[in-house]
Amino acid sequence: MTVSYTLKVAEARFGAFSGLLFRWRGSIYKLLYREFLLFCALYATLNITYRLLLTQEQKRIYAQVARYCNRSADLIPLSFVLGFYVTLVVNRWWSQYTSIPLPDQLMCVISASVHGVDQSGRLLRRTLIRYANLASVLVLRSVSTRVLKRFPTMEHVVDAGFMSQEERKKFESLKSDFNKYWVPCVWFTNLAAQARRDGRIRDDIALCLILEELNKYRAKCGMLFHYDWISIPLVYTQVVTIAVYSFFTLSLIGRQFVESDKESSPAPWYLDMFVPLTTLLQFFFYAGWLKVAEQLINPFGEDDDDFETNQLIDRNFQVSLLSVDDMYQNLPPTEQDLYWD
Amino acid sequence: MTVSYTLKVAEARFGAFSGLLFRWRGSIYKLLYREFLLFCALYATLNITYRLLLTQEQKRIYAQVARYCNRSADLIPLSFVLGFYVTLVVNRWWSQYTSIPLPDQLMCVISASVHGVDQSGRLLRRTLIRYANLASVLVLRSVSTRVLKRFPTMEHVVDAGFMSQEERKKFESLKSDFNKYWVPCVWFTNLAAQARRDGRIRDDIALCLILEELNKYRAKCGMLFHYDWISIPLVYTQVVTIAVYSFFTLSLIGRQFVESDKESSPAPWYLDMFVPLTTLLQFFFYAGWLKVAEQLINPFGEDDDDFETNQLIDRNFQVSLLSVDDMYQNLPPTEQDLYWD
Amino acid sequence: MTVSYTLKVAEARFGAFSGLLFRWRGSIYKLLYREFLLFCALYATLNITYRLLLTQEQKRIYAQVARYCNRSADLIPLSFVLGFYVTLVVNRWWSQYTSIPLPDQLMCVISASVHGVDQSGRLLRRTLIRYANLASVLVLRSVSTRVLKRFPTMEHVVDAGFMSQEERKKFESLKSDFNKYWVPCVWFTNLAAQARRDGRIRDDIALCLILEELNKYRAKCGMLFHYDWISIPLVYTQVVTIAVYSFFTLSLIGRQFVESDKESSPAPWYLDMFVPLTTLLQFFFYAGWLKVAEQLINPFGEDDDDFETNQLIDRNFQVSLLSVDDMYQNLPPTEQDLYWD
Amino acid sequence: MTVSYTLKVAEARFGAFSGLLFRWRGSIYKLLYREFLLFCALYATLNITYRLLLTQEQKRIYAQVARYCNRSADLIPLSFVLGFYVTLVVNRWWSQYTSIPLPDQLMCVISASVHGVDQSGRLLRRTLIRYANLASVLVLRSVSTRVLKRFPTMEHVVDAGFMSQEERKKFESLKSDFNKYWVPCVWFTNLAAQARRDGRIRDDIALCLILEELNKYRAKCGMLFHYDWISIPLVYTQVVTIAVYSFFTLSLIGRQFVESDKESSPAPWYLDMFVPLTTLLQFFFYAGWLKVAEQLINPFGEDDDDFETNQLIDRNFQVSLLSVDDMYQNLPPTEQDLYWD
Amino acid sequence: MTVSYTLKVAEARFGAFSGLLFRWRGSIYKLLYREFLLFCALYATLNITYRLLLTQEQKRIYAQVARYCNRSADLIPLSFVLGFYVTLVVNRWWSQYTSIPLPDQLMCVISASVHGVDQSGRLLRRTLIRYANLASVLVLRSVSTRVLKRFPTMEHVVDAGFMSQEERKKFESLKSDFNKYWVPCVWFTNLAAQARRDGRIRDDIALCLILEELNKYRAKCGMLFHYDWISIPLVYTQVVTIAVYSFFTLSLIGRQFVESDKESSPAPWYLDMFVPLTTLLQFFFYAGWLKVAEQLINPFGEDDDDFETNQLIDRNFQVSLLSVDDMYQNLPPTEQDLYWD
Repeated sequence: MTVSYTLKVAEARFGAFSGLLFRWRGSIYKLLYREFLLFCALYATLNITYRLLLTQEQKRIYAQVARYCNRSADLIPLSFVLGFYVTLVVNRWWSQYTSIPLPDQLMCVISASVHGVDQSGRLLRRTLIRYANLASVLVLRSVSTRVLKRFPTMEHVVDAGFMSQEERKKFESLKSDFNKYWVPCVWFTNLAAQARRDGRIRDDIALCLILEELNKYRAKCGMLFHYDWISIPLVYTQVVTIAVYSFFTLSLIGRQFVESDKESSPAPWYLDMFVPLTTLLQFFFYAGWLKVAEQLINPFGEDDDDFETNQLIDRNFQVSLLSVDDMYQNLPPTEQDLYWD
Repeated sequence: MTVSYTLKVAEARFGAFSGLLFRWRGSIYKLLYREFLLFCALYATLNITYRLLLTQEQKRIYAQVARYCNRSADLIPLSFVLGFYVTLVVNRWWSQYTSIPLPDQLMCVISASVHGVDQSGRLLRRTLIRYANLASVLVLRSVSTRVLKRFPTMEHVVDAGFMSQEERKKFESLKSDFNKYWVPCVWFTNLAAQARRDGRIRDDIALCLILEELNKYRAKCGMLFHYDWISIPLVYTQVVTIAVYSFFTLSLIGRQFVESDKESSPAPWYLDMFVPLTTLLQFFFYAGWLKVAEQLINPFGEDDDDFETNQLIDRNFQVSLLSVDDMYQNLPPTEQDLYWD
Repeated sequence: MTVSYTLKVAEARFGAFSGLLFRWRGSIYKLLYREFLLFCALYATLNITYRLLLTQEQKRIYAQVARYCNRSADLIPLSFVLGFYVTLVVNRWWSQYTSIPLPDQLMCVISASVHGVDQSGRLLRRTLIRYANLASVLVLRSVSTRVLKRFPTMEHVVDAGFMSQEERKKFESLKSDFNKYWVPCVWFTNLAAQARRDGRIRDDIALCLILEELNKYRAKCGMLFHYDWISIPLVYTQVVTIAVYSFFTLSLIGRQFVESDKESSPAPWYLDMFVPLTTLLQFFFYAGWLKVAEQLINPFGEDDDDFETNQLIDRNFQVSLLSVDDMYQNLPPTEQDLYWD
Repeated sequence: MTVSYTLKVAEARFGAFSGLLFRWRGSIYKLLYREFLLFCALYATLNITYRLLLTQEQKRIYAQVARYCNRSADLIPLSFVLGFYVTLVVNRWWSQYTSIPLPDQLMCVISASVHGVDQSGRLLRRTLIRYANLASVLVLRSVSTRVLKRFPTMEHVVDAGFMSQEERKKFESLKSDFNKYWVPCVWFTNLAAQARRDGRIRDDIALCLILEELNKYRAKCGMLFHYDWISIPLVYTQVVTIAVYSFFTLSLIGRQFVESDKESSPAPWYLDMFVPLTTLLQFFFYAGWLKVAEQLINPFGEDDDDFETNQLIDRNFQVSLLSVDDMYQNLPPTEQDLYWD
Repeated sequence: MTVSYTLKVAEARFGAFSGLLFRWRGSIYKLLYREFLLFCALYATLNITYRLLLTQEQKRIYAQVARYCNRSADLIPLSFVLGFYVTLVVNRWWSQYTSIPLPDQLMCVISASVHGVDQSGRLLRRTLIRYANLASVLVLRSVSTRVLKRFPTMEHVVDAGFMSQEERKKFESLKSDFNKYWVPCVWFTNLAAQARRDGRIRDDIALCLILEELNKYRAKCGMLFHYDWISIPLVYTQVVTIAVYSFFTLSLIGRQFVESDKESSPAPWYLDMFVPLTTLLQFFFYAGWLKVAEQLINPFGEDDDDFETNQLIDRNFQVSLLSVDDMYQNLPPTEQDLYWD
């Protein structure tokens, strides 16, 4: 489930964000603890090797290697590349969210423009809105792993009531190498045109409005598909990943507390700590920043913080059927309001 | 209340922004003084402990720890991550503000297109605009803590005149797991369609225009809901918070004026100040920058600088009723203007 | 008056921008010279005190304080916070400019759709466009100090011909705590609806088009009002201001050329300059950058570079009356063009 | 083929991005290995020359040159200029992708509004949508090297069925120095107008809707053309390229492990490594970052990660013909859905 | 002429951008060589003065000044301010390009909606589109130095066929302090309204569509005018320019290879080079970055890379006349396409 926490920090009171540090679901700890343990294990191994197994001469050489690694790590401008990269990923992430098609506009227009309380009027409205929902299910199946798990085959889509067996046959008879989410949209337009001919839609303008709303809906389906098809160029992601990983590999070696320090320049600030606090902090910081990107680069996965696509599909289907059918011309009585005259 | 101060700095005269430093409402001082006092208290405690309680040997060790912390603090690129993060938060904040639905467009269109000076004409126009206002109240209740305090139950919404008892029953009979702000919108469209049938709306184009404006209005309600549901990913906020907090924890330890400095390298620039001015300045700077994010991440709370949602609701209701009812066909006489030929 | 200089740098010829350094109106010198003089005066005072009044022992202590300040100043990442803050301010500044409502679209539509060359046709078109202009004057009065100076009371608005006495009475009889710029918009829609009934507007689509354009116009008025009401959060501005001011306070103390340098480490690079060139340069640079923000944060003030709101109001009123009245159906004869063949 | 990899990183599980490092297609390795080998070869040559051929005196001079180069390399703020430049390029890249015209909206509208199941109705619909596809082929030919390879002459466009011989003659009889992608759009509008006259399009609003959708389609074609015509200013690209190239030239010389180090200051941290690990890492990092820009600056080339323009053209043509012809009024039977009553 | 080079770098092959370094037109070399020569000349003068004319004592002082300058130069965060400033300029540059009005949409709509193959039908369509072109010429004259050179007086506009003598008289009889590009737009709307009355435009919706397209066209003209009127605030440009210029002034003095280095600390890394390679590189880098801004701040000048406004005007006029006149109802015969079966 999406992690909504802003209500908890509605006021900027004392240490507002500190409360957020004690959460587990969707937290940096949950995302990062495995990498963290691995990093610690590797660090400890190296540390023990150094302290117990190396000869004095080997230690001296190691110390040189460590210094070299340390200086190397400083030459990688991690914060720059992470700042720009994460900004890019976050912008895409939000655009993807706003591209999830919602039938609300469409259902308002259908409810107002497609008339008839009889059986065939109901059928018409329900079928129109069902087609719209079907299109979004089809595109979300190809985009979201959660939705694909729920609807592994077209049979599941039929079983869930988004499609009839007849429609499925027709749908599958059309061959295309690409996603066929546009098929229900074309059905929609044809059905709307037919409704206009039959007088269920009473005027040309209403038809025009419905088609325009459908186009907006379809455009959002298309955007979702495009965001899925065209990833952030692999090279960029690789550059960032290599930068972060090599930084930590260098840190692993370079941040050991080596003895030779003491000998050559017994600086007063030398301190042999067994736990490299700073390095762990840096790990949390940089690896966490990268995790932001890892989590958001595909917000249709099954991370704690990914979009609740299945709930959204259910909500959309339920709400849209409700509003074009049960609520059609089913108005509360209009009465004078409190401030009447 | 929102803090508007730009009028005070309309001219870029001598030290224009300096005047802004002496404000309390919505200021950094008000937001930060508790954290600041805590920080000072901790610093003082540590300082006293160091000076009075530690032995010479302990002091020497402490000095090493302090140096280590000091260098560690420098390795966290706070300004980078804060710069990018705060930019993200500020952009979301402004988008949220512009998503607050305003009925102005809708009321102009209704006033121009829904006709009849008689009782039922008035009732129709008032009911339509009331539904629109109701939708925004419903969504703001779920988003803004201020509005929820004002309308803790649906009963309060009814009492405030946004809803009749009949409507409330109908509204509550509809079951949905999600926010039901769309219900009044569907009522609106149905009522508008009915008005078209009754000839109160005289042509199809006017109906179409009303539906389009309603859709824009509803889209804004939807955006508010989405901004509330989908927070900035928790990981990002945690990364930033951990970075800032650990920076100050390290500063707390590392910025003490330790004696061993003097001994080992009696540098001429050593200075034992009891008040760590720089560190406090840095605290103000970085913690203040984080406070910007804390305050804006949920602009619907009760901070000094959060949006005045309750006033806006009142303004919208008052203004929209006024313009569709009292002002309907109530025009000042048209006369020749000053520059008439 | 707005300072337009791009024509001067249309070509990227030799030292193109250098020419811009010798301007006074709207320049950094004009905006900054007072702060600059103050800074120099304080620096000189401190310098003289140090050289003439302090004992050798005091000088030694001062040298330590200076060093401490110097290192402190380096810890404030001014360029980061200024970069992000000024970018935010500049974006808002341009959005505010593009939000200034222009009647050009509206006047074209009115000129094409509201018919009649007789007295009442003229009156109708002039009144409609006058209402639109009135709305923008009302909102600009509350936003721009220049416009408020020109129209301190509603009486002045009436005197300038934007409003008749009758309209003013009606306007003032409506009570609202918020800006009432929407009132003329509602009048506009009602008058347009009446014109449609009277057949002055010949078809529903033309009315619809006029209402849509009015809504766009009103939306811009609304945006201006919102930009004025919701400032950039005070905290952000304060953080930036405190950062810049404390940087310069620290520089003032720390950048003095203190003697003790020479004694302890008579570095060959020591240089006793009486004028702290670097510091002054930094002052110009950082304080100038902040001045960009100070000037743009409210572009409706009376700075050299602020928007020419009064001229715009005049231009809009003149142009829009011209085009709906004098130019109505007053076309140059259509003749065959040069390439007719 | 475009490299879509986000599905592989849908979950932010353990070391999510690490899996991306072992890909070849579209990877940084494939893009960079030639430059990398060249860099290594040059480095090795220089290294061997230094170790084997230089006299002791020459080595001493070389050491000075190396130090000078090393310090020089640090003075170029590569990460800044790369960060801003790559952000610009990535934004343009995505805008270009979203500018690729898709006929989906148009085909829905044509299918709903252009009537007749007879021969001439089919012909009309097919011709309209073919014109739209033709326009996009014409513009993509001038933009994409892949598409130009597929359609080197207009004859190829005719052979592929996008154009008839008659149309080609007419098209070629029109002279213009600029791309003529707008010609099929004008044909489209004229044909649509004719269809309206013939009653194939039954009402004015449908025609208006078709024209509006065509205009959106044409606008996208135009944007593609503009993005191709107006490159990112050459100067900017040159500045970035010079910066990166000179950085590596300086590194080549400066990062050699020179002996004189040892002599003058036999620091304990000196380490004679034959492989300059850090420098190679930096090379990967900075050159890889530049490669992101190189790959995206023209996304219509034949890189692994460039857009699949030819597949898109095929998909669009196939899908649009299908939906305006085969699917026209070819609806699955409407039946009651699963949740009826 | 605009410099389009992306086709040359369509593939990210070996050293893709390196090819761009050997171009002259629009290159950094062409833009920068004069400044570069000046910089070298000044550097050489100073160098010779130092080596030949100064006494030993003067050299010692100079060395101190140089060190001071060197450290000062490092305190100016050039890359920050340039990064943010150039990003701002580049965004404005592209927005300005997309604001250039193109008549393509308008000509499609006119061709489809304004009927009649007779003389007066042709005249009507040609006149309408000519008015649109005239508006863009009028606004481009005030914006682009190239266009102003081509049309120094209104007489030239008449001679070029954009305006008749009658129209010019009418145009000049209207007085306004601001640009009058809106006048032909008002003529356009009046002429369109008249065409509707005469039945040349057959329905209200077509008229509405034409007016909407005209409004979009006019809005772009307006944006061009605004971008010209409201420059980036002078202060910002001055801050950046002062920063760059003072950086190079300081470099000029500070980067001389002074002898006293050697004496006081005969570091092994000292190197007396007569050509300050690094400094020249930095000059190329920073001054080149500034040149990007200089070139783009007014893209309507006569730089190599500025927009080809005159060609665009010609193209627009030619294409739009062609499509509303010659191509009107001049369709290729519709035949069955290749995939008909």
